[in-house]
Amino acid sequence: MPKISTKGQHMPESPIRKLVPYSEIAKKKGHKVYHLNIGQPDIKTPEVALNAVKNTNITVLEYSHSAGFESYRNKLSQYYQTHGLPINTADIIITTGGSEALLFAMGSTMDQGDEIIIPEPFYANYNGFSTASGVTVVPVISTIDEGFALPPIAAFEKLITPKTKAILICNPGNPTGYLYSKEEILQLAEIVKKHDLFLIADEVYREFIYDGEEHFSIMNVPGLEENAIMIDSVSKRYSMCGARIGCIVSKNKEVMATAMKFAQARLSPPTLAQIASEAALDTPQSYFDDVITEYKDRRDTLIAGLQKIEGVKVATPKGAFYCIAKLPVKNADNFAQWLLESYDLNGETIMVAPAAGFYSTPDVGLDEVRIAYVLKKEDLIRSVEILEDALKKYNNK
Amino acid sequence: MPKISTKGQHMPESPIRKLVPYSEIAKKKGHKVYHLNIGQPDIKTPEVALNAVKNTNITVLEYSHSAGFESYRNKLSQYYQTHGLPINTADIIITTGGSEALLFAMGSTMDQGDEIIIPEPFYANYNGFSTASGVTVVPVISTIDEGFALPPIAAFEKLITPKTKAILICNPGNPTGYLYSKEEILQLAEIVKKHDLFLIADEVYREFIYDGEEHFSIMNVPGLEENAIMIDSVSKRYSMCGARIGCIVSKNKEVMATAMKFAQARLSPPTLAQIASEAALDTPQSYFDDVITEYKDRRDTLIAGLQKIEGVKVATPKGAFYCIAKLPVKNADNFAQWLLESYDLNGETIMVAPAAGFYSTPDVGLDEVRIAYVLKKEDLIRSVEILEDALKKYNNK
Repeated sequence: MPKISTKGQHMPESPIRKLVPYSEIAKKKGHKVYHLNIGQPDIKTPEVALNAVKNTNITVLEYSHSAGFESYRNKLSQYYQTHGLPINTADIIITTGGSEALLFAMGSTMDQGDEIIIPEPFYANYNGFSTASGVTVVPVISTIDEGFALPPIAAFEKLITPKTKAILICNPGNPTGYLYSKEEILQLAEIVKKHDLFLIADEVYREFIYDGEEHFSIMNVPGLEENAIMIDSVSKRYSMCGARIGCIVSKNKEVMATAMKFAQARLSPPTLAQIASEAALDTPQSYFDDVITEYKDRRDTLIAGLQKIEGVKVATPKGAFYCIAKLPVKNADNFAQWLLESYDLNGETIMVAPAAGFYSTPDVGLDEVRIAYVLKKEDLIRSVEILEDALKKYNNK
Repeated sequence: MPKISTKGQHMPESPIRKLVPYSEIAKKKGHKVYHLNIGQPDIKTPEVALNAVKNTNITVLEYSHSAGFESYRNKLSQYYQTHGLPINTADIIITTGGSEALLFAMGSTMDQGDEIIIPEPFYANYNGFSTASGVTVVPVISTIDEGFALPPIAAFEKLITPKTKAILICNPGNPTGYLYSKEEILQLAEIVKKHDLFLIADEVYREFIYDGEEHFSIMNVPGLEENAIMIDSVSKRYSMCGARIGCIVSKNKEVMATAMKFAQARLSPPTLAQIASEAALDTPQSYFDDVITEYKDRRDTLIAGLQKIEGVKVATPKGAFYCIAKLPVKNADNFAQWLLESYDLNGETIMVAPAAGFYSTPDVGLDEVRIAYVLKKEDLIRSVEILEDALKKYNNK
C-alpha cells in the first residue's frame, strides 16, 4: 500500500474545526450552539458586490489574467492610495483568498528548511501554510499580561539564524485583536533591514480598528520597499469570506515576478468572485461606519461581560474581531469539548476555539480560548452568561 | 536586500504565456491574432450554471465547508455513478480548480526530493506544481511516431527508484489528445501496485472523446482503490475555466484525510463558483452532444488541414482539444515568435504554443507546437492557411 507524505502527516488539523464532531453531538441533542469559534461574520455582504454578479452579462465564464482583472487591480490600487497606501497596479497580484497570497509569499521567499519568525499566538493556518511550504515556524511569544504587544526586539534577534528568511505578523491580530503601533512596526522594519529578511504582514483586518486608533501599514515605511510583502483579502472587509479573493502586494520586483510564476501555474483567481470584489470597491462609507459601530459595540459587550466573570482574564482587542480569554480551567481543550458534549444551559451551549492551536510552542496557552465576536449583541450577552454558568459547573464537577 | 527562494527561481515560466509580449507587438501593428495557443474554449457556459448565480438569494457570501458544499459533493457523486464511476461523496473534496487538486495530491503523497514519473509531453503546469511542491519530475518519453501511446512499461520500470512516489497521467491528454486504452491503464495499475506507488490521473477532459471511443478511468480498475487519485475540474466540461472549481477523488482514506488538512488550511473553495458548478450538473445532455459534435468537427478540420501542409506531421487526437504538430522548422520557439513579431498574411497571424515547454527532457520537441482547437471552424481553416503560408516564407528567408 502506498504511503502518504511526511509533510502530509505533519499538516496540522485546524484547531477551529477539530471540535466539529462534538458540536454535532450537541446539535443531535437538540442543543442550540452559539458559534464563538469561527471568524465567519453574520454581517451582510454589500449589495453592490452581490448585484454585480447577479447582473453580469458574461456568457462564457473565462479565465482571467493570472494576476487578476487589470480593471480590478487598477481600482484596488486607487482604493489603497485613497487610504494612504502608496500601492500601484504593478504591485498587486490578485489571489484566491489571503490564503493563496501567503502561500505565494512563502514559496517566493523560502525553501525547504528555511525559518520564519512569527509572534505567537498566531492565526493557526500559518502552521498549515508553513508545513505545506516546508518552512519551519520559529515562534516568539507575546503574552496576555502585556496585552499581546510586540515582544522585545531582542527576543527576535536571539532567534535569527542563517536560515531565517522572514518575519510574519498579523496586524491587527487574529487571534489577539492587538494593533501594532507605528513604533512597533518601525522596530520590525529596522530588524528585517538589518538582517536582509522579508517582513510579511497580514493586514486583512486593516479596516477593523476601534477607539480612534490608526492602522500603520508596513507599506508606509520609507525604505522598506524591498522587504515588505503585504497580504490582503476581501473576506472580512466586505463580509465576503466565500469569495476567496485576496492579493499579494509588494514593491519588490523580483518577489512579484516570482509570485507571478506561481500565479501562472494555477492559471487565474476565480472570475465570478473578482466581479463581486471589483464592485465591492464601490461600497459606500456608510456601510463601513455601520459595521465598525456594530463590531465596537459587540466588542464592548463581550469584553465587559468576560471581565465580570471570576477568574477570566482578557486583553481588550483594539482591532479585528477576536479576543484571547484566559479561563480558570486547566485545559481549555477539554473544557471546550465538555461544553459541547456534556453541558447545556436550558438547551443552549457555546463553541469556542481552544487557543493552544494558535501557539507553536507546546504546552502554552492551554488555559486560553479564542472568542470571535461575530455574533449579534444579544447572542454575545447570552454566550457570556452560558460561559459563566459553565465555568462554575465545570469547576465544581 | 532579501533574496527570493531557490524554488522561486526554478519555478518555470508558462510556455503558453511567454509569447504574450510578442502577441502584443502583433496587436500593436493592428494584426489580427488567431489564438491557437491557449485552452480557453469559446463555447458558451451552460445557462443553467450562470442562472444559478444570477438568481442566488444569498445575502452573506460565506465560506463553504472546506471539502465543498455537501449538496454539491452528493450530486457530483451521483453524476460520476451515472457515468459508471463508483465514486461516493466521501471520496470527493472540492478544490479551487484542478490545479489545487493536483497540489493537494502532490502535498499529500510526496515530500521534498521525491520523484514523480510523467509521460511527456505533458501539461506544462505539472512542472510548476512539482517545483512548488519540491518534487522532481522524471519524464518518460512518448513520441509522435507512436501517436503518443503509453511508453512501454519497461521504460517506467527503469525509472523507478526508492524516491519514486507516483506516476501521473493526463487522460485524454493535454497536449497530445491521446486517449489511453483500457489495456494501457491496466498496465499502469499493475506497475503502481507492484511498487506501492500512487497513480494520479488528470481526467478533466473525460467527456471530450471522439470516434465512438470510450474513456476508461483509473477509478474503474478493481483493486486499485488505495493507489488511485483522480483529478477533475468543471473548467472544460462546462466551459467554466474561470469558475476555478475542481476536485480530488480517491478511495484511499488516508489520502483523503490528509488532503482534507490541506483543504482546511485554505478554508474553502469559492462559494459563487460552487453554486454555478452544482447547477451545471443539470446541464442537459443535448449541450454535450452539441459541444462534442462541434469539437469533433473542429478537430477533423484542423487535422485534415495540417496533414495537407508539406513537412507537417500530426497525430490525430482521440480526445481533449489539442494536438501536437511537428513542423518543418528547426526551432518552433523562434518560429512562433517570428509569427507574431515579423509576419502577417493580409494583417492576420497565428499564435501557437511551442511544445518544448511540454517536455521535461531538454532539447526534445524543439520542432513541435501545441495547437488548441478551441476556435470556430472558419477560424481554424484560416489559421491553417496562415500556417502554410508562414512556413513557406519562414523557410525561404
